[in-house]
Amino acid sequence: MSERSTAQNAELALLLEVSGTPKPGNVDREREYDDLRFEHFLAGAVGARPGLDRAADGERVGRAFERAVDGMAGQSGGNTQFGALLVLTPLVAAASEGDPTPEGVADVVGDTTVADAADFYRAFEHVDVAVDDPPEGLEPLDVRRGSDAIPTLEERGLTLSDVMAESADVDGVAAEWTSGFERVFDAAEGILAGEGPVADRASRAFLRLLAEEVDTFVVTRNDRETAAEVQRRAQAVLDGEEDATELAEEFVARDVNPGTTADLVAGALFVALERGLVV
Amino acid sequence: MSERSTAQNAELALLLEVSGTPKPGNVDREREYDDLRFEHFLAGAVGARPGLDRAADGERVGRAFERAVDGMAGQSGGNTQFGALLVLTPLVAAASEGDPTPEGVADVVGDTTVADAADFYRAFEHVDVAVDDPPEGLEPLDVRRGSDAIPTLEERGLTLSDVMAESADVDGVAAEWTSGFERVFDAAEGILAGEGPVADRASRAFLRLLAEEVDTFVVTRNDRETAAEVQRRAQAVLDGEEDATELAEEFVARDVNPGTTADLVAGALFVALERGLVV
Repeated sequence: MSERSTAQNAELALLLEVSGTPKPGNVDREREYDDLRFEHFLAGAVGARPGLDRAADGERVGRAFERAVDGMAGQSGGNTQFGALLVLTPLVAAASEGDPTPEGVADVVGDTTVADAADFYRAFEHVDVAVDDPPEGLEPLDVRRGSDAIPTLEERGLTLSDVMAESADVDGVAAEWTSGFERVFDAAEGILAGEGPVADRASRAFLRLLAEEVDTFVVTRNDRETAAEVQRRAQAVLDGEEDATELAEEFVARDVNPGTTADLVAGALFVALERGLVV
Repeated sequence: MSERSTAQNAELALLLEVSGTPKPGNVDREREYDDLRFEHFLAGAVGARPGLDRAADGERVGRAFERAVDGMAGQSGGNTQFGALLVLTPLVAAASEGDPTPEGVADVVGDTTVADAADFYRAFEHVDVAVDDPPEGLEPLDVRRGSDAIPTLEERGLTLSDVMAESADVDGVAAEWTSGFERVFDAAEGILAGEGPVADRASRAFLRLLAEEVDTFVVTRNDRETAAEVQRRAQAVLDGEEDATELAEEFVARDVNPGTTADLVAGALFVALERGLVV
């Protein structure tokens, strides 16, 4: 048998992530929304692969990410894995340089340029992503402007690393970019140390991350109060006080979708696969 | 967004096939065996992709198949998609020549050589496949001999098409090879004409195929009587006399796994995707 390539591990991480069940509020193997279904995530993962291949082949991170998002968008469910690809792309780049570590990925982040930032903005043209209004004074850099924001990026000389730093306090994926993907690497260790089917480990990793910090996607789509409730109730599941499956049903019914936490799980699964996790 | 490539559609077909539920007796999104899990099929599909890419790039069919099986085997569940890849590889080759039709795939089959047959035998070295003992006089060509059988193939000048014709009466995949993939193309039309989520259409296509003919994998692993029962009870589901989910639970509990029918569904999903099925 052949070993999987780095890009294959990244694609498999996307597939394993969505297959973990229960993951309260998210699409998983047993729960979906009418207009955002399990099959959309399968097609998103397959579609993203050429972009992930580029990241593994040394293409600049922004461009590889933009290509991955373009391919991911080739299904009818809308945004399935934008955030997960933003987590995975620098990790794939670091892994392809033989250094899938916090230091390795920090180097990748530190090496990003204004061109990467421009690619990042272009990626928003491929799919609707739920985002907050930008802080006052940053309207010209609203990601929803897509490539229209590129002249401002260039004038200000902002790299993709700079752009991520700007939103690290309101976006859990950006926060990983500025912290050497600390939570992702921690979760990967938890997955590697776990037992049983990988999909079950993914589900547990999701619950642990969810209990650890508020999910910024819930803050954006719902509100801070709901996000705090989600965090508290994930802890209650870990403490044996709530049932994970019932919580999953309730959150899906309420359209509470902790997507940022799922993005981190995808990254953690990738790191675990690179470190020898057997599927 | 980018269009999926032919090989991406083949990989997605494998993923959609295993995601259809219920599929009585098979691993699906909601049912698995302890040692053969949903995640093994995900990894099998991702692993098979380089071989599918080769088929799309014009590599000879046998070699592309052997490479796909080698990659598919890179997971710990054993044989997940050997038969499905044997269905998909010639279909991918035909599609990549712009002719994903019964005539196009018949041409691909007709063009196979002794070298393709040798590749096919090599593929059995990557994974354990449940097969019957060969008919009397064909012991030297028992597929379980792997590459040891190649000298005999060469002496007798047997192409892969010839090898498939030899077992067309006992193997439902080989029967497709000799019939222009008639059942696969019919099932693809059924999927395209259907409504609702693709995974649900895959499940219905599975039941229709199962009711239509005995599953040869069940004949091999269980016996002909069980295979006849499976066919009869699939028809009962279609007639509204049995519940598909209950039947799925029962067949999994009895280890009755109509794998050949699943292989045909994977092929049908691929053809449907090539013909514009929207996911």
